[in-house]
Amino acid sequence: MDTPLPESLRFILGRRSIRAFVPGEVSDAQVLQLLQAAMAAPSAVARDPWRFVVIRRRPTMEALAQLLSNGDMLKSAALAIVVCGDIEAAHDRQLSYLLQDCSAAIENLLLAAHGLGLGACWLGVHPREERTRKTRELLGLPEAILPVACLAIGLPAETKPPRTRYQPAAVHYETW
Amino acid sequence: MDTPLPESLRFILGRRSIRAFVPGEVSDAQVLQLLQAAMAAPSAVARDPWRFVVIRRRPTMEALAQLLSNGDMLKSAALAIVVCGDIEAAHDRQLSYLLQDCSAAIENLLLAAHGLGLGACWLGVHPREERTRKTRELLGLPEAILPVACLAIGLPAETKPPRTRYQPAAVHYETW
Repeated sequence: MDTPLPESLRFILGRRSIRAFVPGEVSDAQVLQLLQAAMAAPSAVARDPWRFVVIRRRPTMEALAQLLSNGDMLKSAALAIVVCGDIEAAHDRQLSYLLQDCSAAIENLLLAAHGLGLGACWLGVHPREERTRKTRELLGLPEAILPVACLAIGLPAETKPPRTRYQPAAVHYETW
Repeated sequence: MDTPLPESLRFILGRRSIRAFVPGEVSDAQVLQLLQAAMAAPSAVARDPWRFVVIRRRPTMEALAQLLSNGDMLKSAALAIVVCGDIEAAHDRQLSYLLQDCSAAIENLLLAAHGLGLGACWLGVHPREERTRKTRELLGLPEAILPVACLAIGLPAETKPPRTRYQPAAVHYETW
């Protein structure tokens, strides 16, 4: 990138996966803003099948850290948000739409966290069967509610510069 | 929303689906920035399975408009970007990760378009079998390349205010 980035591009490229947190509060007002950003994402036929479980209790955070590989950061995070999809609410009850809608919402939420000066990291749950089952048990999720990912959120203990993993080889023109 | 939004939140909530375009150019430099934003999204195990087909030729745009329901806007869009995933590149060759990664990249791309003053709309392809097959044929996609969505991009002929579809009922605390 040789030319200066527009501010919005710098913002998007500035969202990095933050895996270390310092102690400190994330307010309920901030959590509300994260969720408002998440639910501003597009959704197939506006079915909005996303569901969010906001977790602040330490024992639940510790249990999540145990059941997710690379989930250790949850022990120092201020909170976790488990993003789920309701398969009954998804367009045509299609898992594909559920995953697409939830993932767009997650990206919005991660960007909003960055915008609020928070750090966040996306920890995968779906399609791992064991993680799905244990997350379902831990949170008491109904059958129709599919956990997609767990987001660790807190005050960042690391800073990372904006970056893209842009690869020209990933881009084709007109045809493959 | 009673309190003023932080600028980054206003930016995220300001990304709206734009379905009408006025004639005008989207430069190659802008397209590059859209793709840089897309490829700044998180990806499971950083496998970056996303692939992008950038389409400016009118006959191809018209063909896409034909094969996608609600794709009429492509006739007036400056370009289309068909976002695909390479199942061979996806983490554990899992369709779920392919869809999650591509959807996060799509949301970044749509936000970048908004940031550049462009309009854009997400048109679904996966999991519709006929759309997938016809898109595959039109673009000559190899077997491993799965078209996920087609993005119509152009100069907006409509303006929409920032908004969220936030629903308190979609949020749970600690447990379901």
